[in-house]
Amino acid sequence: MSELPPYWLRDNCPCAECRDPRSGQKLFRIDDLPEDLSVAASTGIDGDLEVLWSDGHRSRYPLAWVDAERDGDGRTEADKRLWVAADFARGIPEAEWAEYLGSPTEQAAVLGAVRRSGFAVLRGVPAVERQVLAVAETFGFVRVTNYGELFDVRVEPDPNNLAFTSVAITPHTDNPYRDPVPTLQLLHCLENSAPGGDSGLVDGFRAAAVLRDEAPEDFAVLTRTPVPFVFRDRGTELRADRPLIDVDALGRIREVRFNNRSIGTLRGSAAELEAFYAAYRRFAAITLRPELQLEFRLDRGDCLIFDNTRLLHARTAFAQDGARHLQGCYADLDALTSTLAVLHRRNAALDAIGELFAGEGAGEYLGEAVTVAEHMLQAGALAEAAGAAPHLVAAALLHDVGHFRGALHGRDLMQGRDNRHSDTGAQWLAQWFGPEVTEPIRLHVAAKRYLCAVEPGYRARLSEASEYTLQVQGGPMTEEQAAAFAAHPAAEAAVAVRRWDEQAKDAGAPTPDFEHFRPLLAALMG
Amino acid sequence: MSELPPYWLRDNCPCAECRDPRSGQKLFRIDDLPEDLSVAASTGIDGDLEVLWSDGHRSRYPLAWVDAERDGDGRTEADKRLWVAADFARGIPEAEWAEYLGSPTEQAAVLGAVRRSGFAVLRGVPAVERQVLAVAETFGFVRVTNYGELFDVRVEPDPNNLAFTSVAITPHTDNPYRDPVPTLQLLHCLENSAPGGDSGLVDGFRAAAVLRDEAPEDFAVLTRTPVPFVFRDRGTELRADRPLIDVDALGRIREVRFNNRSIGTLRGSAAELEAFYAAYRRFAAITLRPELQLEFRLDRGDCLIFDNTRLLHARTAFAQDGARHLQGCYADLDALTSTLAVLHRRNAALDAIGELFAGEGAGEYLGEAVTVAEHMLQAGALAEAAGAAPHLVAAALLHDVGHFRGALHGRDLMQGRDNRHSDTGAQWLAQWFGPEVTEPIRLHVAAKRYLCAVEPGYRARLSEASEYTLQVQGGPMTEEQAAAFAAHPAAEAAVAVRRWDEQAKDAGAPTPDFEHFRPLLAALMG
Repeated sequence: MSELPPYWLRDNCPCAECRDPRSGQKLFRIDDLPEDLSVAASTGIDGDLEVLWSDGHRSRYPLAWVDAERDGDGRTEADKRLWVAADFARGIPEAEWAEYLGSPTEQAAVLGAVRRSGFAVLRGVPAVERQVLAVAETFGFVRVTNYGELFDVRVEPDPNNLAFTSVAITPHTDNPYRDPVPTLQLLHCLENSAPGGDSGLVDGFRAAAVLRDEAPEDFAVLTRTPVPFVFRDRGTELRADRPLIDVDALGRIREVRFNNRSIGTLRGSAAELEAFYAAYRRFAAITLRPELQLEFRLDRGDCLIFDNTRLLHARTAFAQDGARHLQGCYADLDALTSTLAVLHRRNAALDAIGELFAGEGAGEYLGEAVTVAEHMLQAGALAEAAGAAPHLVAAALLHDVGHFRGALHGRDLMQGRDNRHSDTGAQWLAQWFGPEVTEPIRLHVAAKRYLCAVEPGYRARLSEASEYTLQVQGGPMTEEQAAAFAAHPAAEAAVAVRRWDEQAKDAGAPTPDFEHFRPLLAALMG
Repeated sequence: MSELPPYWLRDNCPCAECRDPRSGQKLFRIDDLPEDLSVAASTGIDGDLEVLWSDGHRSRYPLAWVDAERDGDGRTEADKRLWVAADFARGIPEAEWAEYLGSPTEQAAVLGAVRRSGFAVLRGVPAVERQVLAVAETFGFVRVTNYGELFDVRVEPDPNNLAFTSVAITPHTDNPYRDPVPTLQLLHCLENSAPGGDSGLVDGFRAAAVLRDEAPEDFAVLTRTPVPFVFRDRGTELRADRPLIDVDALGRIREVRFNNRSIGTLRGSAAELEAFYAAYRRFAAITLRPELQLEFRLDRGDCLIFDNTRLLHARTAFAQDGARHLQGCYADLDALTSTLAVLHRRNAALDAIGELFAGEGAGEYLGEAVTVAEHMLQAGALAEAAGAAPHLVAAALLHDVGHFRGALHGRDLMQGRDNRHSDTGAQWLAQWFGPEVTEPIRLHVAAKRYLCAVEPGYRARLSEASEYTLQVQGGPMTEEQAAAFAAHPAAEAAVAVRRWDEQAKDAGAPTPDFEHFRPLLAALMG
C-alpha cells in the first residue's frame, strides 16, 4: 500500500465527485490536487481499498483494479496475431454481409479479425456504386482525402497514380505521405472478370518482426529514421516525415509505412544514408518472401477491410481490357475498435441482464403467484402481443430490474421501505438504452399512483401486494401531481407499461424465455 | 562524389523512366535495383552531376539538389514560431472572410499563420449553421468523429461532456483518446452575448520547450511514457496510448496531448508512476502560467482555426443563461499544409509566367511589329473583349509561352526548324492549368494549318512571318487531317484562340499589362 504513488492513486479516484460516472471523464484538474498530498489512513473493506487523504477526501478502489496489470490500446504487435500466409490455409476471416448486418456476434467477429489479424472480407455486399461508404459507416467514419470521399481502382485514360493502371503493384501501404495516415482501407469489388488482378496481403508487423530477428541493427535504423514521403499533383502537395517502422516507448511495433513510389529525398550523413538504404532493401526483400504473400481473389460483391498501418497490400497484373473495378475508401481504426468494444460491452450487458432473469429473478416476487422473472417476461410478452413498439416491449420486459440493483432490495419494499426500484432500474439500464426505454421504467411506479388517482376502479383491481406497496410508494397522486405527470412526454408510455405490469401475474400463462427477447434488446442498444 | 551512397543517389534519379514527371511517384521498386550497384563514371556538366551506373543506366542531378540541406515536413518545433501571449500584443493573425476567399495571398497568409503560429481567426464568416464545414473545406477535409460531422458548444440539458456546460475549461487538447487524433479544430461563433466565455490559447510546444529548459528529466519522462487516454459513452469506447509530448527521431517536439479529464489508469512500477506524475504536474503548472495565456473574444461570425496537436485551448466560465453558441468541427493539418504549398506553388508559377512577359517576351516577335509579350497580352485582351470564358482568355494570353520553354527557341522556328512551341507551351502550363486551358494552346498551330485548308481567304490574310512559319510547321492540312482536327473536342476553342492570335499584332493598340490577368489565371489554377 505504501508503495502506491499518491498522485497516481488520487488521480484515479472513482467517486462521483471526481469523475463523471457515465463518461468516466475526470471532473478535476491535475493541478487542483494539493501539494504534499499523502494518504492519511487506508483500510481494506470487502475487497476494496479505502483511503482517507491528507486533504480529507475519501476514495474507495476495488483491489482488483489496484492490482491490475499493464494493458494497451490494442495497436501494437502485443495485441495482434502476426501471421504468414499458411496460417490461412483453411480460409481467411470472412462473413456474409447479411449476417454481419443482422448479428452483433458476427459483426464483432469481423471487426475482431481486422483488429487482431489486420483484415477481413465481407461477401455478398451489394455491388453498387458508393456501397463501400455504407460498409465503412457500419463501424466508423469515412476519411476524405485528395482522392475524394471514395476512389475507383480501374484502368483510366489519364492515370495520375499507378493504382489506376493494369500493371502489377507490389506490397505497399497507402497514403504514407498523409499525416495522419488513413489507418483503415476498404476495397469493394464491383466487377472482376479480368484474368489476373488478384489481391495480395502481407503482414507488415510480421515482416518487421522478421527483420528484427534477422538484423536487429537494420530494424533499429528503420525505427529511428524519419523518411520523407511525398506526393504532388496539380491540386495537392503532401509530405510526411515518418519512419518505415514506428515503435512505441516500449519498443513494440506500432505502425509500418512501406511505399517506395512516394519516398522523397532523404537527407543525412553518408553513413546514415548508407545504413538506411541497406536496412530498407533488406526489409523490402523480406516483404517479398513467398511465405508472407497471402493471395486471394476479390469477386463481385466482396469487400476487403484492412489495417493500413500494418498490412501491405498488392495486386497482380491484369489484362488492360479486362473489366476490373473496385471502389475504395479510407476510414480509421479508432472508431472500429470503439465499435468492437461497444459490441462486446453490449453483449456483456445482455448476459448480465439475462443472469438477473435466471438468478435472483427466478425467486419469489413480493407475494405474487409468479417469480419476478416470470412477471417481467409476461409483461414483455403482453407488450409484444399488443403490437407495441420495440422500446415499449423492452420497457415492459425490464421494468422491475431495479428490485435487484439498489442498495435496498425488493424485500425492503415489502417491509415498508421504498426501494425506489423504478429509479435504480432506469439508471442502471441507461448505460445501454436510451430514454425511450428507460423513461417508462423510471415512471412506472408513478403511473400506478397516477392511475389510482384518475381512473375509477383501477385501484380496486390492484393485487394485494401492489395495494400494500402503493402506500409505501406514496399513495395515489394529488390532482396537481396527476396533472404534472400527464404532461410528461413519457407519461403515455409509462401508463402502457403499467397496465402490462398489472396483467403479468398469471401463474398459468405461457412465458417466453429471456433469449426470445435478446435480439430486440440488442437492436435497441444500437 | 565518392561519398554519395549509391542506392540513395540512384533512388533519387529524376529521369522520366524512373519517376512520373507529374506526380513525382517512382516507377521502380527499391528491390529492382541490382545488388552491388555502383557508379561507373560521373562528370559535372552545366551545374549538373551526370552519373553512369554499373548497370548502364544514366542519371543527371542538379548540383543544387545534391548539396541541399536536410529539411522537414513542417510539423516539428523546428518549423514553428513558438510564442507567448505578449507576442500578439499588437494583434492576433486574422483576416476578413471575404478577402480570404477572394485573394490567394490572403488565404496563404491565414493558412501560413496556422502552420507557423498554430492558429488564425477569420472574421465576418456568415453566422449560419454548418458554415464551419464550408470554412474547413476551403483548405481540407472535415474529419467526422463520435461527436458527428460537427458539434455544438453551448449549454445542453443532458451534457455528456464538459464542453457543453458553462463552467470554465482550462487549457487542453481535444480528442486525445482518438488515434489518429484530429490535428486541426475549427470553432465558429454563431452567438456570444454571454458575459464571460472568452477563448484562450496556449502554445503547447512553447510550454513543452519551457519544461525541457527547466526540467529536462521531466521532459524526457513525458516523451517516453505512453498515457492511456479514454472516453466512453453509450455508443463509444475509445482509448489511445500516446505520450503527452511526442518528439521525432531527432528529439524535436512534434505533438502535444494534454487533457486530464480523459487520462485513464496509467500502469507501471511505483517509481515510474511517481516520476510521471511529478513531471505531469510540473508541465500542467507551466501551461497555466499567465504569460502563456493568450485570451481573446470570439464574436458572432468569427471562426478560429487551430492546430490541435500543438495548441491547448481554454474557455472562461460564462453565465448559464447567456446565449453562447459555437459550432465546431475537426480537420487535418496535412491537407492544410498541402493547400498552402499549392498556393505558394501557384504564386511562384504566376511570378514565373509574369517574368516571361517582362523578360524574354519583351523582345522581338519573329519579325512582327509587336513584341511577343505585347502580342500575347493583346490576344488575351481581344478574348476578354469578346466576352470569352476565362479559360479561353487564359489560352489566348498564354498561347505562345512555348517559344521560351523548349530546347529550341522561337528563333529556331524562323530559321526553318519547327520548335513545336504549341506542344512545349501546353506541357509546361499543364503543371498548373487543366486541359480546358492547355488543349487550345497545344492545338493553336494545328488550327492555323486547319483554317488554311478549310477557310477560303484565310491564308491570304496571314502576316508574312506567319506565312513563313506555316511552311516549317507542315503547311495546310490535307482533307483527312482537317476532318480529324475538326472532330477534336478542343478544336473550336483552338480556332477561336487562333483568330485572336492573328489579330493581336497591332503595334498601336492599347495593351493591358500582365497583372491585369493575374486574378483570372489564379482562379483557373484552383
